[in-house]
Amino acid sequence: MSFIELKLDEKIATITLNRPKVNALNDQLIDELKAAFQGVQAEGNINAVILRGQGSFFSFGFDVPGFMAYQKDEFQNYVEKYSDLIKEIFMFPKPVIAALNGHTVAGGCVLALACDYRIMISGKAKIALNEMTFGSSLFSCVTEPLKYAVESKKAEQIIYSGKMYSAQEAFNLNLVDRIASEDEFDAVVLESAQDFAGKDIHAFASIKKMLKKEILNTIESYEMETISEFVDIWYSRSTRANLSKIEIRG
Amino acid sequence: MSFIELKLDEKIATITLNRPKVNALNDQLIDELKAAFQGVQAEGNINAVILRGQGSFFSFGFDVPGFMAYQKDEFQNYVEKYSDLIKEIFMFPKPVIAALNGHTVAGGCVLALACDYRIMISGKAKIALNEMTFGSSLFSCVTEPLKYAVESKKAEQIIYSGKMYSAQEAFNLNLVDRIASEDEFDAVVLESAQDFAGKDIHAFASIKKMLKKEILNTIESYEMETISEFVDIWYSRSTRANLSKIEIRG
Amino acid sequence: MSFIELKLDEKIATITLNRPKVNALNDQLIDELKAAFQGVQAEGNINAVILRGQGSFFSFGFDVPGFMAYQKDEFQNYVEKYSDLIKEIFMFPKPVIAALNGHTVAGGCVLALACDYRIMISGKAKIALNEMTFGSSLFSCVTEPLKYAVESKKAEQIIYSGKMYSAQEAFNLNLVDRIASEDEFDAVVLESAQDFAGKDIHAFASIKKMLKKEILNTIESYEMETISEFVDIWYSRSTRANLSKIEIRG
Repeated sequence: MSFIELKLDEKIATITLNRPKVNALNDQLIDELKAAFQGVQAEGNINAVILRGQGSFFSFGFDVPGFMAYQKDEFQNYVEKYSDLIKEIFMFPKPVIAALNGHTVAGGCVLALACDYRIMISGKAKIALNEMTFGSSLFSCVTEPLKYAVESKKAEQIIYSGKMYSAQEAFNLNLVDRIASEDEFDAVVLESAQDFAGKDIHAFASIKKMLKKEILNTIESYEMETISEFVDIWYSRSTRANLSKIEIRG
Repeated sequence: MSFIELKLDEKIATITLNRPKVNALNDQLIDELKAAFQGVQAEGNINAVILRGQGSFFSFGFDVPGFMAYQKDEFQNYVEKYSDLIKEIFMFPKPVIAALNGHTVAGGCVLALACDYRIMISGKAKIALNEMTFGSSLFSCVTEPLKYAVESKKAEQIIYSGKMYSAQEAFNLNLVDRIASEDEFDAVVLESAQDFAGKDIHAFASIKKMLKKEILNTIESYEMETISEFVDIWYSRSTRANLSKIEIRG
Repeated sequence: MSFIELKLDEKIATITLNRPKVNALNDQLIDELKAAFQGVQAEGNINAVILRGQGSFFSFGFDVPGFMAYQKDEFQNYVEKYSDLIKEIFMFPKPVIAALNGHTVAGGCVLALACDYRIMISGKAKIALNEMTFGSSLFSCVTEPLKYAVESKKAEQIIYSGKMYSAQEAFNLNLVDRIASEDEFDAVVLESAQDFAGKDIHAFASIKKMLKKEILNTIESYEMETISEFVDIWYSRSTRANLSKIEIRG
């Protein structure tokens, strides 16, 4: 059983999250995603990556019901692994296009923020970092990529409000780079991926590192401290009570 | 005699600067403000703070005429104490709403920038960092919270021009987060404070620290150096001549 | 023979790049520009600097055809010297106004970004960091001043696209601070320079250092590493093939 689909075309790899119905993130999915990116990195003739979800979700975030059975240290291990993956995608030497084919929430939004370019489908889909609405904290690989995308004060606004944004609102906030209607979505994603795949791969890798290396240093400067605090709050009585009410609907 | 009023309501503390007519900042006011924030921090059932001024001013900034009698080292001590207060408010673990009920200038604007959310009354009130217009420099707890709010290039523009901005202009610059007419002002401030007070206090404190801790580190990396330079320029012949012309009007 | 003209007026120095037709940057021009700025710094009665180009170009950037004859280590020396000049202008204690009288491309755009205020002539002139379109990388004194001007995500967009922007587009991106038509251009530049020259020079120098010193530290933290990588990619087979096709047209 696999929660990831990998397709290699002319210069472009497509990685699809395939864990119906909401592509909830768990240990196995993160392991497979990591392996998929490592495989794509080794492919000499692949110059760009598309990351997308199946169905009507990009990803609804962590598999909260699944994690309710985890011991605290198991969950801490999972969060550390997830944080590593986010850093790897954020610094991935090839361009990564997030094709936000549907709802993109919490940990799913963080996954999108790690990518280089976000294209969001217009219509019903929403994007949010809604952790604060259920009393959850965050950690450094959420805040820093967000501040890279939208500047400090808007980052604060997105996090403090926990609001579910439409594609248009997200575009106005710089949270996504482009919007496309359902009809045009696949074509727009492909066109963007081809555009990125046409760039000189060495110049791209060098410049991306230059633009993002300082952010990685900042992420790592408070990563472990904030992951521990995130896990402590997650296991606090009041937040746990909120989490236990979350059902992941299909 | 006290220059601060403190009121504790259901979950919300209101701190009012009360030094007519312009709520000019001096040693005593800063001491009392510090004590008020420490008191509020200790109150377990207070989840948000409103900081506002009495009359038609939030604060016109430092009590310049009062400081003309200070020796240089006394003034340096005052500035260090003020800088400490700004840092404490900037990192205060509970949300702080600045209710800008009137003119918000220089040191008064810095006080507002240390808060989490700025609501400005529309109409005649102006907001400015006008130090450069009288030949004064600044120090790190001015520049860094400003850059956190408005990004580098707009921060530069606000400082270099020293311009007095209307509420609408300030909103367009992200210098304030919300505008309200005189009629609606108190209700809008209360509504915002209640909104913040409704958030999980542990998640808020953790995330606020995450968003701002790096800024605090940067402030402290050049705080003493820039305070010394600020004081030197303040006591230079040309700037002192400008300062001696400042009258604080009611 | 000189590639720089220097004119000293009442409080204002004008430095003109004078290497027809495109004011291409080479070793001699950089040496002369450095000497001109050092001379202006020593002039006690000069309070502002205008940097502009002759003809219909501000500068088209590096003299690529001229550099094709350079050995790799000679080119590395040139890039290090250029990077030093950019840092000196970025931190220059007096205000520097870039008068973008025409096309402002690649290394010419970087020169403009090192200045405090950019005024661009409207009409046909274009501004771009187009290095990626011919497979060239960049180095830290390109990326950091750009991020200071336009925030991270727009910086990425400008660099990844390599697009030639009109004055209006550049203004919308914050890449330039003001636009003026050909008729008004000289008057607008002079007015801005006079405005800056009227500020207290000590307060300006102190505040500019405060706003930019952290950026300088960041530039220097990865300057040599990125210059080496830039030079390596410049001398790679594929990029060299692209460079050899560049003609500088008048």
